[in-house]
Amino acid sequence: MTQRTVPELIAVKRDGGALDEREIRRLIEGFTAGEVADYQMSALAMAIYLRGMSPKETAALTLAMRDSGRVVKLGGPERLYVDKHSTGGVGDKVSIALAPIVAACGVRVPMVSGRGLGHTGGTLDKLEAIPGFSVDMTVDAFVKQTDALGCALIGQTADIAPADKRLYALRDVTATVASIPLITASILSKKLAEGIGGLVLDVKVGRGAFMQTLDDARDLARSIVRVGRLANKRVTAILTAMDAPLGRTIGNALETHEAIELLHGRGPEDLAEVTYVLGAEMLRLAGLEASERAARARMEQAVHTGAARAKLAEIVAAQGGDARVVEEPDRLPRARARVVVKAPKAGYVHGIDALELGLTGVAMGAGRTRADQAVDPAVGIVLRAVRGERVKAGDPLAELHVEARAGTKPWAARVERAYTIRSTPPALGPLVLETIRK
Amino acid sequence: MTQRTVPELIAVKRDGGALDEREIRRLIEGFTAGEVADYQMSALAMAIYLRGMSPKETAALTLAMRDSGRVVKLGGPERLYVDKHSTGGVGDKVSIALAPIVAACGVRVPMVSGRGLGHTGGTLDKLEAIPGFSVDMTVDAFVKQTDALGCALIGQTADIAPADKRLYALRDVTATVASIPLITASILSKKLAEGIGGLVLDVKVGRGAFMQTLDDARDLARSIVRVGRLANKRVTAILTAMDAPLGRTIGNALETHEAIELLHGRGPEDLAEVTYVLGAEMLRLAGLEASERAARARMEQAVHTGAARAKLAEIVAAQGGDARVVEEPDRLPRARARVVVKAPKAGYVHGIDALELGLTGVAMGAGRTRADQAVDPAVGIVLRAVRGERVKAGDPLAELHVEARAGTKPWAARVERAYTIRSTPPALGPLVLETIRK
Repeated sequence: MTQRTVPELIAVKRDGGALDEREIRRLIEGFTAGEVADYQMSALAMAIYLRGMSPKETAALTLAMRDSGRVVKLGGPERLYVDKHSTGGVGDKVSIALAPIVAACGVRVPMVSGRGLGHTGGTLDKLEAIPGFSVDMTVDAFVKQTDALGCALIGQTADIAPADKRLYALRDVTATVASIPLITASILSKKLAEGIGGLVLDVKVGRGAFMQTLDDARDLARSIVRVGRLANKRVTAILTAMDAPLGRTIGNALETHEAIELLHGRGPEDLAEVTYVLGAEMLRLAGLEASERAARARMEQAVHTGAARAKLAEIVAAQGGDARVVEEPDRLPRARARVVVKAPKAGYVHGIDALELGLTGVAMGAGRTRADQAVDPAVGIVLRAVRGERVKAGDPLAELHVEARAGTKPWAARVERAYTIRSTPPALGPLVLETIRK
Repeated sequence: MTQRTVPELIAVKRDGGALDEREIRRLIEGFTAGEVADYQMSALAMAIYLRGMSPKETAALTLAMRDSGRVVKLGGPERLYVDKHSTGGVGDKVSIALAPIVAACGVRVPMVSGRGLGHTGGTLDKLEAIPGFSVDMTVDAFVKQTDALGCALIGQTADIAPADKRLYALRDVTATVASIPLITASILSKKLAEGIGGLVLDVKVGRGAFMQTLDDARDLARSIVRVGRLANKRVTAILTAMDAPLGRTIGNALETHEAIELLHGRGPEDLAEVTYVLGAEMLRLAGLEASERAARARMEQAVHTGAARAKLAEIVAAQGGDARVVEEPDRLPRARARVVVKAPKAGYVHGIDALELGLTGVAMGAGRTRADQAVDPAVGIVLRAVRGERVKAGDPLAELHVEARAGTKPWAARVERAYTIRSTPPALGPLVLETIRK
């Protein structure tokens, strides 16, 4: 039988049919080799966006994309290698505290992260706020460091899932980003190529997140958990609220500072909660603890003994950074000026619009709207009042960290507008919404 | 207000929304200028394929594509310029007889035709079977000849609707051909750029046609008629059956020969019927005759007096061809050998599979599967028995015209299989199925 041509394969998906594993692999291999053109792949992406893909098809797509580049082989038992991935939020500095905590507990964390784009920040930008810290590493060095220190924190290399990199660039300009099978394959292909045995996915839900409703977040979570299992990996998705920013800081050095505070046993409660919930699940997937309670106790121990800080210091030093920041976080870059945003009236803080604050951060130079923009590590926003807190008129709501006070009025106005203040106390919903293991 | 980006415009269509005229024009102008990338246009084409377009959007797309190149201004009153377009069938040589007949009656026919692709033939390939005939002409020469002789028969030039040419090439490799708004815009943009006042569309329906069901054909016909009216043109669509080939020949020189026979008052009845029905409507749209009966009489007169043959001879001579073929059609190229396909049993011919015969013609070299292939003008198939006719076992069903008898068995077998022979006479349906004027 003659095999179907590329347009015929696109037509199958266009008409709502299913592609088989060989066909999907042929498309992705052809795309990687340049034989399937960008315009064919974008038409296929739109057909997938509108027609969907079965879990079996999504798994085939994920594995074909994983195999488009190098698939890392790590040294120890696969079970121990567990990564965490967040779908992206505002103020989400969890990885920087979480990775050293769980590594100090014996999990091996081969973490490949991304940069900030749009209103959400990126772990790489936050790490680079540490003087000297480099996120560029060869795959061989990455493997070596993960096995030696239990953790490496790097950026995507050209070797890992190159088909994902090209497809993502196409999706970004063809309105085909928000497709659950395509997001699933994009996230998992890279993670599976890292050589992990397990993955904990933090699916952010709400106004500051990519998934704005619980239903959408649940669909994505289930898709990733299901496809992960088809690929013989243990995957747990935890849905967490992202209506207000996580913690009290937005901006790269400010967020790294806040994450380090957590390793000192300080830091905001919401950030600690998300970090411990995700970390406990990582320990569980690695087979190091059976119960969440025991896992949390082990993590708290690693913080109290300073083992987690020591682990971060090792990682920072190994990646060329100034490890003194771990004990002396004031060594992180600081912006020259502060602008205080004051409460326009008395009352309780009901909401802080994460999307609006994320976008304000981008406007201030903390993030980017195009992949080739540079960021200023020092600038950002510190929340002086968070949800549930009571303020008097004129009390500080937030503080802008800026290089100069001139021209900051529009940002201050946006931050003020991002706060909802009412006369009665708010009913705050839970932070951890749902755990999906199958 | 900031204008929407290209991905945002794609997203509107992806989500089933409507683009406005300015937005559609911006997309097509950007595409023509190279600012909207092929991969964006193919994603948009897939979104249009799956979500559709309103008549207003389709009209805007048509006019934007028309305006991507030169829009011809012809000399006389616009009303007189009427073209005919066929959606493509097997054995469809109508244009070659029709254009000179109606031109002899006073219609001006600025006809830009296409080449064969896949199982359907193309007028240009058939015309080029005439020794010396050239279908390449500048737009200025095209205008001049149309006004001087009442007709020019040319191929698409780079000046006319270049956006359509590029978009069509993309659709062909991205499984986005069979979309009614995209087909409407493709056909009409080129035709409107010719400077016509009216258009008669022959929508082929059936197994040998692009539209296989009456419903699909009706949808396309209505779309084109509606959009034509939005562009202030008189457009009539006539649905004609394309289950069996039209006439008794398939192959370029063979078909041109058969069309010339029609100008001599000979030739098969089905071909004459379609030609006269379409031609009468052209005369009507041009305002030359009010009734179909009078229009047909005028056309028959042009054939009987030899005016139509004289018109074709003028056109052929003007375009560098050997005009003697009109009176001596045996001057057309002839293949070296004949292979007779015999009836395997006695009975009545119930059906002749047009698709199968079209594909066999392609395999024989009469057509092409890729746009860059050459065709052999002489080869083809002559039907010796057509639907409704009775045959005895061993009677000739068809005759292959080939350059050599070696290797022709598979073609003969395909042609034999394309015939359905049964013991009782068939009930033949009508050839002209429907006329759609609004």
